[in-house]
Amino acid sequence: MKKGCPYGTHRVIEPKGVLPQPALKIDNNMEIYDNEILIDVHTLNIDSASFTQIKQEAGDNEEKIKEIMMNIVNTRGKHQNPVTGSGGMLIGNVEKIGNSLEGKTNLKVGDKIATLVSLSLTPLRIDEILQMRKNIDQVDIKGKAILFESGIYSIIPKDLPENLALSVLDVAGAPAQTAKLVQPGHKVVVIGGGGKSGMLCLYEAKKRAGITGQVICIGPKEKSIELPRKLNLADAYITADATNAVEVMEKVKEATNGEMADIVINCVNVANTEMASILAAKNDGLIYFFSMATSFTKAALGAEGVGRDNTMIIGNGYTRGHAEIALQIMRESEALRKVYEELYA
Amino acid sequence: MKKGCPYGTHRVIEPKGVLPQPALKIDNNMEIYDNEILIDVHTLNIDSASFTQIKQEAGDNEEKIKEIMMNIVNTRGKHQNPVTGSGGMLIGNVEKIGNSLEGKTNLKVGDKIATLVSLSLTPLRIDEILQMRKNIDQVDIKGKAILFESGIYSIIPKDLPENLALSVLDVAGAPAQTAKLVQPGHKVVVIGGGGKSGMLCLYEAKKRAGITGQVICIGPKEKSIELPRKLNLADAYITADATNAVEVMEKVKEATNGEMADIVINCVNVANTEMASILAAKNDGLIYFFSMATSFTKAALGAEGVGRDNTMIIGNGYTRGHAEIALQIMRESEALRKVYEELYA
Repeated sequence: MKKGCPYGTHRVIEPKGVLPQPALKIDNNMEIYDNEILIDVHTLNIDSASFTQIKQEAGDNEEKIKEIMMNIVNTRGKHQNPVTGSGGMLIGNVEKIGNSLEGKTNLKVGDKIATLVSLSLTPLRIDEILQMRKNIDQVDIKGKAILFESGIYSIIPKDLPENLALSVLDVAGAPAQTAKLVQPGHKVVVIGGGGKSGMLCLYEAKKRAGITGQVICIGPKEKSIELPRKLNLADAYITADATNAVEVMEKVKEATNGEMADIVINCVNVANTEMASILAAKNDGLIYFFSMATSFTKAALGAEGVGRDNTMIIGNGYTRGHAEIALQIMRESEALRKVYEELYA
Repeated sequence: MKKGCPYGTHRVIEPKGVLPQPALKIDNNMEIYDNEILIDVHTLNIDSASFTQIKQEAGDNEEKIKEIMMNIVNTRGKHQNPVTGSGGMLIGNVEKIGNSLEGKTNLKVGDKIATLVSLSLTPLRIDEILQMRKNIDQVDIKGKAILFESGIYSIIPKDLPENLALSVLDVAGAPAQTAKLVQPGHKVVVIGGGGKSGMLCLYEAKKRAGITGQVICIGPKEKSIELPRKLNLADAYITADATNAVEVMEKVKEATNGEMADIVINCVNVANTEMASILAAKNDGLIYFFSMATSFTKAALGAEGVGRDNTMIIGNGYTRGHAEIALQIMRESEALRKVYEELYA
């Protein structure tokens, strides 16, 4: 087998020298390199923004949607929407494993996996589009794909429904990072604690902070903290507007007897919540921004403006074991599992 | 004395409840609260973007510039340019210290200080504009200002020229954070190592990594690494385009015998250098983004896309002792001091 680069640069056709994601065209020949994994694909989970654009372009005509999708893959070697730039993920079975990966991967031929890297960088060949579930952006296909050595994935667990597993894997980074950061005795604030990733973060924070710690859930309205409260995911609940830094600071001060938080986890996909996150933390507290609405400069200049020695971390959707940690929550908490099955699966 | 909030919210007139920076108007009455410091101001260092805008609006007429500046301060109670939103910093002598700060501050009445928080949140009164040095954005005034309890400052050292001190203080956060992060034996890459903050970072990194560590300077061209090389600030020098992730990765791999960096410090104010920073680091390495051109989403999604468990930190311009750490470099290294006097003071 030919030797490949861990990041798949050996597959890039145009322009030369870039990574597969920014590349315009990559090689989707299905003869694998020594560090690649061949996947027999059955379902594509198209990124929501991408699929919406495709449906619009096609006037919601199914045959036209198929044509557009086939055209994208034939042109680019990957399902990267040229308008939105985004991809999605896929589900399939491991068909072949490159020989240099032996002993380095826990995968076996036949395992059913979901890839957790974007379709926007994944070599893909579609032989036939079988059927689509347009309401949940899923398309069943006959086809093959390549997972690079650096590509992350999760084995679909046999004891959880596939759609539940997928919806949890989608936000797996946040609870896994929470689990790694929170120590016994920590005071933890989760901003946006009532949302899909927020509730998983609360669960992990409470488990790690323990009886000597304090976990505080913040949501914008009484309704948005109703569910965490019902499930007893936190020690205290606050309704506050996360774009109002002073309001959040005052309420966290009251809830913590003036001590403020050791760790603030921002899970709220709303702009202008950087300052509230900073002021909810202790002077040397840590702030973990998981929200994609975070502005780098607002965070950096905001902390400096109030003379705060905070450590501010850019939320990384991946951390070792993130899928296992997040899926385990669904096994441990029957109540959370029921909620996720109802709302997100 | 009246009791004030550490962040100065007691001075906000409009809109109520926000912090002084986003406020439209703050109170610049110079009767101090118990946790404020009164400063007798002699020089304003107007933010470069702001001063350029004012000069343009005034058609470069000095009397018109004065009028615009007086108008800003009279309207807003602070020198926050309504077009650019930015401020600047000031230099002056401590005139009075609020009584609740006794024992909490190292300042004495008479100390000459530079405020390191923005003029965009600092209560200011201008009695008279005395003269201006338009080429370096400095304006001498007769006036007073207020430093809030959370406001950061530096005492201007008596043994360094004032302009040298100011130019070093401007980028003090980067070398101070470097000093705190780098441990003996670390491999450290500084992207943009030939710039104003980059060279200070190299100096601190080399000092902390020591003989068992390795410090690597990256610049775009031979010319841009000439100065660090002449001053012997690093152990290895690389010319590479920081927007080309693959090129940077390959060259760092070669320089580190395949080990890659424990810590990557990004000091280059150019867009699209997130991926190069990520791929220059070890799988669990730390990346410190000091560049204001950093995109939060490009960093977050970039690391996930290549399955990297990196810790990525949003550069905070402030950390405890940052001014002392940065100024000390000018005392320790005569060579660097000469360069900074020539280029930046």
